[in-house]
Amino acid sequence: MKTSPEADFLRVLYQSWSDRMTANPTLTIADLRSLFDEWHQPTLEPEGVTYQSKAVAGVEAIWASPVGADASKVILYTHGGGFAVGSAASHRKLAGHLAKHLGVIAVVIDYRRAPEHPFPAQIEDSTAVYRELLALGFKAQDITTCGDSAGGNLAIATVLKVRDDGVALPGAVIAFSPWLDMEHVGTTLETNHTSDALVSKTLLEGMSGMFLGENGSRTNPLANPLKANYKGFPRLYIAAGSVETLLDNATDLAGIASDAGVNVTLSVVDGMQHVFPFLAGRAIEADEELRRIGKWFKGD
Amino acid sequence: MKTSPEADFLRVLYQSWSDRMTANPTLTIADLRSLFDEWHQPTLEPEGVTYQSKAVAGVEAIWASPVGADASKVILYTHGGGFAVGSAASHRKLAGHLAKHLGVIAVVIDYRRAPEHPFPAQIEDSTAVYRELLALGFKAQDITTCGDSAGGNLAIATVLKVRDDGVALPGAVIAFSPWLDMEHVGTTLETNHTSDALVSKTLLEGMSGMFLGENGSRTNPLANPLKANYKGFPRLYIAAGSVETLLDNATDLAGIASDAGVNVTLSVVDGMQHVFPFLAGRAIEADEELRRIGKWFKGD
Repeated sequence: MKTSPEADFLRVLYQSWSDRMTANPTLTIADLRSLFDEWHQPTLEPEGVTYQSKAVAGVEAIWASPVGADASKVILYTHGGGFAVGSAASHRKLAGHLAKHLGVIAVVIDYRRAPEHPFPAQIEDSTAVYRELLALGFKAQDITTCGDSAGGNLAIATVLKVRDDGVALPGAVIAFSPWLDMEHVGTTLETNHTSDALVSKTLLEGMSGMFLGENGSRTNPLANPLKANYKGFPRLYIAAGSVETLLDNATDLAGIASDAGVNVTLSVVDGMQHVFPFLAGRAIEADEELRRIGKWFKGD
Repeated sequence: MKTSPEADFLRVLYQSWSDRMTANPTLTIADLRSLFDEWHQPTLEPEGVTYQSKAVAGVEAIWASPVGADASKVILYTHGGGFAVGSAASHRKLAGHLAKHLGVIAVVIDYRRAPEHPFPAQIEDSTAVYRELLALGFKAQDITTCGDSAGGNLAIATVLKVRDDGVALPGAVIAFSPWLDMEHVGTTLETNHTSDALVSKTLLEGMSGMFLGENGSRTNPLANPLKANYKGFPRLYIAAGSVETLLDNATDLAGIASDAGVNVTLSVVDGMQHVFPFLAGRAIEADEELRRIGKWFKGD
């Protein structure tokens, strides 16, 4: 299947990042954070959404409220970027599009990032926000956790952690191109190496090193949700692109969760790059994916 | 006068940019654009504003519409960044705050940037957008041009150019810390050199070199509005910080325009850095400045 011309925007952006990182190996973590904040560029402004900067449980956040949305339902959005880069700002528009399709509001959190704050700082922040949403009066089943890449990992691990703690679980979980495999053993890391314009084993090794440190466990289920038990896990939607190096993180998760009895929907879109929903408002592939997720969410 | 603790956010950000540019002299123009896009960080989300990505006259733009605003009145916002960096995205929130205070909508344009596109590409784009706003049905007096730093220059030069072309003039012009002096002869360049955390003569020389090229005129009134004739110019509001190297660009402009009979309001806020309205929603100094501008705009 041919991809739309508009979808190429994301591949070109990723290739420019790869080229810049290769050309300037002295880029600092501050420089890399600036670079990855360009992640907002593929996404057009979602129309009819208002925003508020307001911390939750001490974690800085952007709230996105589509006009007419059901404000009793909320997406807890955890951004991607290898636990080290990316931000609420870079993912604001993506979360706004998703919130519109689900008919709910979203809170995009600026959890603490590695390497200054290694694992488990991220999950401490995301679970603190989840508990605070409950304290604010949101019902557990009216919360959806969602994230992309490392944030997809976090959207899942947050649920695993609160389940272990005996807290009521969210109603749904959505993961865009989740990065789960901290051992870097997935086969698509090799087979999609040339087609994925951004994510390489080398990049992931750098990210997991910052996230877990030298002595962190690469098989802790809260850091590597491919090692987790999915018994009782909420319904789960997973979207990924076919040309991604992280593709089998998505398919492996779908298999493991299904085997545990979870209601899983997996959508792999032909020719798409890492976290292709970033193309929302620009490319039909992203808009159609979000439309499918909206239907899935509403049970249409 | 003591500045608020919140206002220090901008100084710290600027100092970090200066440090990063010094530490890594091989940063490319792409890297610098990423870095300067952090300009959005001091600004909190203005509440109750919706956005749309929509080009005007072929120039990409973000439209900001405060709920309840008078959509027949519009701010044409030209972002700062030495004509080379900065973007509609980095200035979206600032424009949103301003639009709320004025009770109008705003269009923040991604004009072509130097060095790929030297002078006069920027003014070609801004005047094309201005003419298109007229063609869309906005009355000239209901348009306000506004910009910061190099974008403040452009907000003024746009009016000078359309005046020269015999087009009806906008009703008002607002400039935040405008950078006008392309000869780099202002005295505050030296006297505020240690207090301004970002703008130095060296930085400006690099920017003007990209903007004008080697052979561009540094005294062309459309590049250096300190050399312009302000006869018939619309009412003009100028805001700047007292510790800026570009302070006397603001005060000189106020003097020149006043002498030509223009209705000028100059606000210099003690202790503030370059384009301190970026602190909107965060620091009282920015919010009070925008409140003053709102009153000025409405004639209260």
